[in-house]
Amino acid sequence: MSFNESKIEGRNAVLEAMRSGKTIDRLYVLDGCQDGPVLTIKREARKQDTVIKYVEKERLDQMSETGHHQGVIAISAAYDYSEMEDIFALAEKKGEPPFIVLLDNIEDPHNLGAIIRTANLCGAHGVIIPKQRAVGLTATVARTSAGALNYTPVVKVTNLAKTIEELKEKGLWFVCGDMGGTTMYDLDLTGPIGLVIGNEGDGVGRLVKEKCDFVASIPMKGDIDSLNASVAMGVMGFEIARQRLYKK
Amino acid sequence: MSFNESKIEGRNAVLEAMRSGKTIDRLYVLDGCQDGPVLTIKREARKQDTVIKYVEKERLDQMSETGHHQGVIAISAAYDYSEMEDIFALAEKKGEPPFIVLLDNIEDPHNLGAIIRTANLCGAHGVIIPKQRAVGLTATVARTSAGALNYTPVVKVTNLAKTIEELKEKGLWFVCGDMGGTTMYDLDLTGPIGLVIGNEGDGVGRLVKEKCDFVASIPMKGDIDSLNASVAMGVMGFEIARQRLYKK
Repeated sequence: MSFNESKIEGRNAVLEAMRSGKTIDRLYVLDGCQDGPVLTIKREARKQDTVIKYVEKERLDQMSETGHHQGVIAISAAYDYSEMEDIFALAEKKGEPPFIVLLDNIEDPHNLGAIIRTANLCGAHGVIIPKQRAVGLTATVARTSAGALNYTPVVKVTNLAKTIEELKEKGLWFVCGDMGGTTMYDLDLTGPIGLVIGNEGDGVGRLVKEKCDFVASIPMKGDIDSLNASVAMGVMGFEIARQRLYKK
Repeated sequence: MSFNESKIEGRNAVLEAMRSGKTIDRLYVLDGCQDGPVLTIKREARKQDTVIKYVEKERLDQMSETGHHQGVIAISAAYDYSEMEDIFALAEKKGEPPFIVLLDNIEDPHNLGAIIRTANLCGAHGVIIPKQRAVGLTATVARTSAGALNYTPVVKVTNLAKTIEELKEKGLWFVCGDMGGTTMYDLDLTGPIGLVIGNEGDGVGRLVKEKCDFVASIPMKGDIDSLNASVAMGVMGFEIARQRLYKK
């Protein structure tokens, strides 16, 4: 996985980058600007679900390295995403049944980084995130992943539910981590598996949840609602690791 | 546990507050000030291991609500700490063997909050933190604990190693979560237990580690060094919960 952060400035340069398929992490646009080319860029950005931030001219001037931003500056993703094959290749190389973590609704870069870190350590072969609202593999994600981003492939997909269907054809079973399901200790989690984790507030989306074969729950004690997403991922991920360890 | 954040300004007020035993979270002192009363306050602060921050006059003026800070502003802890008896009372009320989480070297308020949250959900009856370098139960800790601070007693002690000795007399066994120990699945964690967690960089301090009965490790896969402290606490805490669940 290669590090590749860059600032793209000016209308043509930004539009070119977008159309060439470069992953834009964030787009800064001059607030109130209604020029034709800028509108085209914004339309393209929305099509790609890029985060758009409207800022004052002073902010753009300050960010600009060339001095010619023309009202738009795009920040491209820090790391390149991997391909789905990379995940399966890693599992095969290790001689293990595939174990993939799928994230629904995780938008916070710290959470994403922490989850990539934990996924690496519990033996997952890759992480899948949806294109829409995904945070991008920025420097913050890399830092909070504590280096795991260099080892664990992260794949971005257009539609998580559709991806689950495709992966089922490859023999994977999907477990959705959520409340009100079967106690995770009572499920056999040793086969080829996809673990779906949602965010704390909304959990896993309905469409994605319906595609899952099981809903697995961590038996909770205590007085409050739910675990932090990265802790929940850790507890479930290491339960998968534990079951695999003792199956041998 | 009651919420009680306040700003104390002026030399007499701050010194009074300290001497009355009020928990001071942070102390802001005018940089370079060598007045007698200010030196007394600093000496008292050091005695209580309070964090001292040296700042410019402009910063103090900005923070001040009364306009009469005289070079010192103290921020008192947001929540009151509990007493050790509160932890044992909670375990007894629930009819469970005591399960306490002890934190060594955890200084980040987000980590502390996340750990209190996780401790609550895995069924721990309390959290113990050392006075020295402890972060204090600030608004940030309360927020990241997601409400758990209202339910899970947090106790501050002067010396963690000494506290472990005292608690051993009450029948507790101490498990230090660290690398290079016994696989946690091979230990019986169902009795009265203290789980000691250190920070990611330094782990658990030597003196504290020597007091522990066992070193327990999470069997790790992957390519990087260690889990985030709150994730590690979650994985070990829920292993204790799992063993207790299946012992019944």
